[in-house]
Amino acid sequence: MPKIVDHDARRAEIVRATWRIIARHGFESATMREIAAEAGYANGALKPYFATKNDLLRATYQFVFEQTNDRASAAHDDESGLDALTRFCREVLPLDATRIDEARVVVAFWGAAENIPAAQDQHITSMGMWREWLIDWLTQIDPSRDQTAGADVLLQFLLGAQITAALNPNRATAEGYEAQLATLLEGLVGVRPSD
Amino acid sequence: MPKIVDHDARRAEIVRATWRIIARHGFESATMREIAAEAGYANGALKPYFATKNDLLRATYQFVFEQTNDRASAAHDDESGLDALTRFCREVLPLDATRIDEARVVVAFWGAAENIPAAQDQHITSMGMWREWLIDWLTQIDPSRDQTAGADVLLQFLLGAQITAALNPNRATAEGYEAQLATLLEGLVGVRPSD
Repeated sequence: MPKIVDHDARRAEIVRATWRIIARHGFESATMREIAAEAGYANGALKPYFATKNDLLRATYQFVFEQTNDRASAAHDDESGLDALTRFCREVLPLDATRIDEARVVVAFWGAAENIPAAQDQHITSMGMWREWLIDWLTQIDPSRDQTAGADVLLQFLLGAQITAALNPNRATAEGYEAQLATLLEGLVGVRPSD
Repeated sequence: MPKIVDHDARRAEIVRATWRIIARHGFESATMREIAAEAGYANGALKPYFATKNDLLRATYQFVFEQTNDRASAAHDDESGLDALTRFCREVLPLDATRIDEARVVVAFWGAAENIPAAQDQHITSMGMWREWLIDWLTQIDPSRDQTAGADVLLQFLLGAQITAALNPNRATAEGYEAQLATLLEGLVGVRPSD
């Protein structure tokens, strides 16, 4: 009887290994051999799952995107308006070591994505989704004005925070990001974040 | 008599060639040979100026940083407060084709910089400079409150806008960025940008 291999589990394992390596020393210098070793596989075992390093980077970005959305899922399931918006922003902002590692993955992804149409599409789709959520939540807080520009400002802020966290970790403090989020939400919709 | 070579001019020419290539198809796939050809030099002629591709990327980032500051220099020389702040933000925001090309350079730089301590230092120094300027101008507009968090929000916004421009050019419209800047400044300091 042939050995049964759980391909989804194996893919997930490889992606998590890639994530750890990017967090440790970035993506550019990582090799397929090193990623295979980190995941506990022989060199060459990655190829059936991810043909190229860029495929792997795209899958790792997708993993981070979904992981962030999972953590913030209560914003959709149980909350709305300010509570939902605050929860979501806190899951995106690099407030702890895990989220700073996530920032390192997305910054590496952006740098490579300029040159890979499929990665650009992935960015456009995922950020389009977040933008719609932001517009909805801001509109729930203050329906009296068009919140499109406000949602775009908030999205740019969340993306910019990833760069600061990845490249200037000394300035990436939870207190700093919380103060910035409070200042921004007060400016956009006149309220402070929920507790 | 030996031929006199203007090394600074040659370095600048190579950097401008790199800039054009990154704008065209990104940095990752660019080769030293291609950059040399674009600058009009034989393969190998780059090495005395830039030993590695990463040295070249760092020099190109520095070129974009200084070019942006040059364009915004009137903000320091002749202006203050809202006028200075508005001028500076408009020179950083990807409002035209040149500035969208600049965005592509900085996004490529960030992706690589995670892994290069000297590039990280370069990011920290240059962004530290901008941050001080933003704090000064915001404080001139409204001295009644601590503008540190506001300046950080504005800086994250300006960085995030580079990513959107590099990866989602369809959404990178001058009208959109102007509306976002107006919304943000109104929220932070209660005024709209200058004309």
